[in-house]
Amino acid sequence: MLQNTTSIRVRYADTDKMQFVYNGKYLEYFEVGRTELLRSCGLAYSELEKAGYQLPLIEAGVKYKSPAYYDDVLEITASINEINSAKVYIEYSIKKENADEIIVTGFTSHMFIREETKRPTKPPQIYIDALKKYFQ
Amino acid sequence: MLQNTTSIRVRYADTDKMQFVYNGKYLEYFEVGRTELLRSCGLAYSELEKAGYQLPLIEAGVKYKSPAYYDDVLEITASINEINSAKVYIEYSIKKENADEIIVTGFTSHMFIREETKRPTKPPQIYIDALKKYFQ
Amino acid sequence: MLQNTTSIRVRYADTDKMQFVYNGKYLEYFEVGRTELLRSCGLAYSELEKAGYQLPLIEAGVKYKSPAYYDDVLEITASINEINSAKVYIEYSIKKENADEIIVTGFTSHMFIREETKRPTKPPQIYIDALKKYFQ
Amino acid sequence: MLQNTTSIRVRYADTDKMQFVYNGKYLEYFEVGRTELLRSCGLAYSELEKAGYQLPLIEAGVKYKSPAYYDDVLEITASINEINSAKVYIEYSIKKENADEIIVTGFTSHMFIREETKRPTKPPQIYIDALKKYFQ
Repeated sequence: MLQNTTSIRVRYADTDKMQFVYNGKYLEYFEVGRTELLRSCGLAYSELEKAGYQLPLIEAGVKYKSPAYYDDVLEITASINEINSAKVYIEYSIKKENADEIIVTGFTSHMFIREETKRPTKPPQIYIDALKKYFQ
Repeated sequence: MLQNTTSIRVRYADTDKMQFVYNGKYLEYFEVGRTELLRSCGLAYSELEKAGYQLPLIEAGVKYKSPAYYDDVLEITASINEINSAKVYIEYSIKKENADEIIVTGFTSHMFIREETKRPTKPPQIYIDALKKYFQ
Repeated sequence: MLQNTTSIRVRYADTDKMQFVYNGKYLEYFEVGRTELLRSCGLAYSELEKAGYQLPLIEAGVKYKSPAYYDDVLEITASINEINSAKVYIEYSIKKENADEIIVTGFTSHMFIREETKRPTKPPQIYIDALKKYFQ
Repeated sequence: MLQNTTSIRVRYADTDKMQFVYNGKYLEYFEVGRTELLRSCGLAYSELEKAGYQLPLIEAGVKYKSPAYYDDVLEITASINEINSAKVYIEYSIKKENADEIIVTGFTSHMFIREETKRPTKPPQIYIDALKKYFQ
């Protein structure tokens, strides 16, 4: 399993008039978790793009357990549990720093496409090479 | 069943460097669909808030079928299929104007809370009254 | 002078915990005003991009006169006062529907670049042709 | 003078189809700079709000010098040059980490309001006390 935790601080811009972080913002926080997960295994997503691949979403799910507020520091844990698949499936869990309470959990699933053609392709070798040591 | 379709135009701000609408933006489009769904049955969400209620999300799901692009006009169809429930479950489907292809489908589920206490409460009578004629 | 007014409705996503529309959102509203201004003279911005041009910002300014709130319908008036210039300078004024009070005023200035090279270029002929009848 | 520099990483969500960071996003980056500027002198903005004050914008300006791209690490420098004023005037400069080139410069001006009444008030004593040692 490949797992990484990264932190972000909630911006004023992220909140809404309910005082909570806006529901759609968590998909952006998931993006940050996913980006740092890939960087943690030595393969920045920007490198994947430079190699001609992109990783758009096929599906996403979010379970809202508890609200987050302005200026909270949130820890985003992202993990990939399987590598032998045409899809990339990533799970997320967000909690406040120094607290046990879960704010949201969720997932995103992705497929690789070629940047030029925007057509689906299987996971490229640079991706497999970067991740395989976590799945032995 | 209560159902409504409303249109929005994709902004430059909604796109990302992949040329597509950013994945998290669809939850904002779902919000527009939900807002106009409630308005269509005579109960603006802002009225619900003035009456002391809010309707935060418990869960959301999005299936990305096909990308949307800058300046596309998107039709967001939102529907509520059941009224006798503690939760409010809303389904969405987004397609391009004058086209059959589905862009995304998804759902959000919500619970009512009291604005002051932020504590859960059952669906208020003004909500039941506004919707019940669609469920007979 | 070329002038156009278009309407948008404030989304929950646009608000922040101060209850007001978030300050940065107005630049997105200016984008909507600018997009519809160009469409009103028969030259959709997406057509400019298809012709190989883009129009990034050089400068922007916003004066916040009065707050806007969730579900407000806002009228965005955008205008171009001069055509014989290397830059494109657009002014904006936003007010609530059926009200006189100004919410914000502002401007953006832009230069044309070629999409491929991202290098500055003078205003293209399709732009001049579309606008010149408003400046006689 | 009170000055502070903080870093953020550009998210995919921040980019647009021009490949650059979206013009309106910089006001959100200014917010991050401002928040960390206040925190650096021991007065978190969230503390100001707990004390019953808010600091909405009166005016903002942005000069776009050079584009920023996905995954860039940006250094946001925010500074306050004067304390004896009814307004709070903050200047910003954003550049890439390990580079000299300026991405954007800008300013925001603010007034204090009371959270409950949303009415203007002079800068509160906790604000003056936190900043005065930088202006001697």
